Amino acid sequence: MEGARDRMDQLVSLCKRRGFIYPGSELYGGFANSWDYGPYGVELKRNIRDAWWSRFVHGRADVYGLETPIIMNPKAWEASGHLETFTDPLVDCKKCKHRFRADQLVDAEEEKTLDLSGIRCPNCGGELTDIRQFNLMFKTFVGVTEDASSAAFLRPETAGGMFVAWKNVRDSLHRRLPFGIAQIGKAFRNEITPGNFIFRTREFEQMEIEYFVHPSKASEAFDMWLQEMKSWVADVLHLSSSRVVYKDIPREELAHYSARTVDIEYRYPFGQKELYGLANRTDYDLSRHQDASGEDLRYLDPDTNERFLPYVIEPTWGADRSVLAVLLEHLDIDEAKTAEGEKEPRMVLRLPPRLAPVQAAILPLQKKEPLVAAATELAATLRGAGWSVEYDETGSIGKRYRRQDEIGTPWCITVDPQTADDHTATIRDRDAMSQERVALRDIPSWIADKVGRRD
Amino acid sequence: MEGARDRMDQLVSLCKRRGFIYPGSELYGGFANSWDYGPYGVELKRNIRDAWWSRFVHGRADVYGLETPIIMNPKAWEASGHLETFTDPLVDCKKCKHRFRADQLVDAEEEKTLDLSGIRCPNCGGELTDIRQFNLMFKTFVGVTEDASSAAFLRPETAGGMFVAWKNVRDSLHRRLPFGIAQIGKAFRNEITPGNFIFRTREFEQMEIEYFVHPSKASEAFDMWLQEMKSWVADVLHLSSSRVVYKDIPREELAHYSARTVDIEYRYPFGQKELYGLANRTDYDLSRHQDASGEDLRYLDPDTNERFLPYVIEPTWGADRSVLAVLLEHLDIDEAKTAEGEKEPRMVLRLPPRLAPVQAAILPLQKKEPLVAAATELAATLRGAGWSVEYDETGSIGKRYRRQDEIGTPWCITVDPQTADDHTATIRDRDAMSQERVALRDIPSWIADKVGRRD
Repeated sequence: MEGARDRMDQLVSLCKRRGFIYPGSELYGGFANSWDYGPYGVELKRNIRDAWWSRFVHGRADVYGLETPIIMNPKAWEASGHLETFTDPLVDCKKCKHRFRADQLVDAEEEKTLDLSGIRCPNCGGELTDIRQFNLMFKTFVGVTEDASSAAFLRPETAGGMFVAWKNVRDSLHRRLPFGIAQIGKAFRNEITPGNFIFRTREFEQMEIEYFVHPSKASEAFDMWLQEMKSWVADVLHLSSSRVVYKDIPREELAHYSARTVDIEYRYPFGQKELYGLANRTDYDLSRHQDASGEDLRYLDPDTNERFLPYVIEPTWGADRSVLAVLLEHLDIDEAKTAEGEKEPRMVLRLPPRLAPVQAAILPLQKKEPLVAAATELAATLRGAGWSVEYDETGSIGKRYRRQDEIGTPWCITVDPQTADDHTATIRDRDAMSQERVALRDIPSWIADKVGRRD
Repeated sequence: MEGARDRMDQLVSLCKRRGFIYPGSELYGGFANSWDYGPYGVELKRNIRDAWWSRFVHGRADVYGLETPIIMNPKAWEASGHLETFTDPLVDCKKCKHRFRADQLVDAEEEKTLDLSGIRCPNCGGELTDIRQFNLMFKTFVGVTEDASSAAFLRPETAGGMFVAWKNVRDSLHRRLPFGIAQIGKAFRNEITPGNFIFRTREFEQMEIEYFVHPSKASEAFDMWLQEMKSWVADVLHLSSSRVVYKDIPREELAHYSARTVDIEYRYPFGQKELYGLANRTDYDLSRHQDASGEDLRYLDPDTNERFLPYVIEPTWGADRSVLAVLLEHLDIDEAKTAEGEKEPRMVLRLPPRLAPVQAAILPLQKKEPLVAAATELAATLRGAGWSVEYDETGSIGKRYRRQDEIGTPWCITVDPQTADDHTATIRDRDAMSQERVALRDIPSWIADKVGRRD
């Protein structure tokens, strides 16, 4: 675990130094495991979100987007059961006042009974209080008064809004089952023990689909989405299959609403933990909302005239965990030669080109004309073609390569004196470290071919 | 104003019926002026966000993205002055208990003094209480206790996070001024009088840039951004210049931190009101944060060795207001012929093709082979090329056209018996209502040419 901890430290430090992810509110001493996505982190996260939307919404004929508010009518959380049961069991030490999650103080087997008898404070050995249930939803107040009547909650998951809007989506689309609703957005949980960089934060981003099907087709739809998730992990994020674990949860351990759940876990340096999840939620959510609202939420099949509550297959992706897994997976340290021909360690993010924050860096070999003009023009052309491009004329070419390696730029394009003569530039490949001369006018299509606009 | 009100009602009703925007939490009787973006509303909003990012971040060499949390260390809001002064003046009626914003009870000239003497309750004529200041930030509690020590706030604007992260951005990018930081994200204001559909909601989305410059270059940068905003309004949103008003705020009416402000207003049916804003915020924000944090936030010019706090030019776009203005601007009612040759009113959203939720609808003339196979294949090809595409085989062709007109689809592509013979399909133009036969294999590039990937 020593090496694993080193790896996390290396990543956190690289992320801050190179503008991927900074500690949140650092100017004021930080804040509660919050993080800022810097210029390169935002681009990486955007690319993941865009790839997801393009694959699962635009790329399919049966999934539609939705964006619902973070603060909903609190009745929705009463109906869904979150107000009552979305809690962590907490205990305090009577002596040192430290606070713990009771389920983290007991063994895995004891977790369900939460029998704390005989367990003392891990910090000072003091006696612990009884367990109390602490709701994980952030509370706020809407309007001028601060009392129970104005209390509202920040959503703890994006799914809730999709169930509440189901009736409107059904009635405005009037299309046949099966179909799904997709949402990307922030969710909030007042966690007692967040941590591990962006793995668990109080504010996080989900990419989620609720896929509505006839109950008899739920199992088949589940298998289809499991396949889709596997393909996303392998073909888009390029995570090694040796680091991703698909865990079919045994029937007796399933949540009460679930007919089947697969946890998708990743081997992070700090342990094998959740990355994504896939659940067959049956008609649990729609039936709770139907009961609570008194509205008919059933679907009417136009062929059979059957009226029924659809089952829901729910694949969920964490956006921040996607970023974390991609960074960990593709961070590599190898060797490169310095200008003096000596070998030095090289840190390189071998990101899939489509996910890389910058696709191409344009580097004039020297800061003089006509190199600068040609390089500037090439940068403008590539920007115009929609690529994320950097132009950098500062420092030695070796240092500039190193910087681009660290932010994962797949191609550095060097404009040198020969460019003025033959209108070509050198494209250096981040991974192979090979160099290739390509005609300036062919570079946009050269990059488009290599990236591939779609999967 | 009768017609204007009608126009809003028409839009709100179309938005719900066609899946652009639904009342939020409607299943539970609605909630506090919140709205859900349905399948087509999400696509429209996404297209606006993407056009903005592509233009102002990827399209430029001097703007970088950033994403900061919604909940920051509350010290940041103390430093920025929001805790103290981000308030609305409220009064209650002593008799009927209605609550009002004091500034909305007085004339424009009286607004600064807020002299309420002689003013009675507009609802019942009763006596009003004294004015009290009500902070517009939503409060929540982080951690287990609910007291002042754990209080935190939902950001009332995205800008704050960018100033707090400025030091980290400066230190990780180490590039020369001028440059800017761009952020798209949600902000929250506990407004007393929200309303007018998505114009003013308690939860809304901003697209904002903080552009850092040497104080001597601030005026020039302001003019550049004013030009950029004008070009966005005209070339991307295609808002008519007769409906957009650029209001240079007179010096004596400027906010205390501003050296110049231009309000960009739109003539909504409910009045001429704010759309966007542009301000020269001087070094006000950075100097407040520098004082409060004790950190040196100055920039060191590598050429002159001058150390100074940059001035900040802040162009701000409301994402929801962009959606509203675009919908209002391009909603049109003309006439079309029914299958029986009679004229009927046609509701059509003449959205710029790049902003339209769906670029192309593929419609087999009849629901039978080989038409369905050819149409399905064409839909898959266009999806693969990255377009948002609908396939619809249900109902008469006229009804299908009407539906696509209402969601603003620029091109309906009809596959008919001739398609099997000559591998062409008919493309119908939403606005000209003209028809053109195009070879199937040429349709992807035909659409790409018409949309234009970039502006």
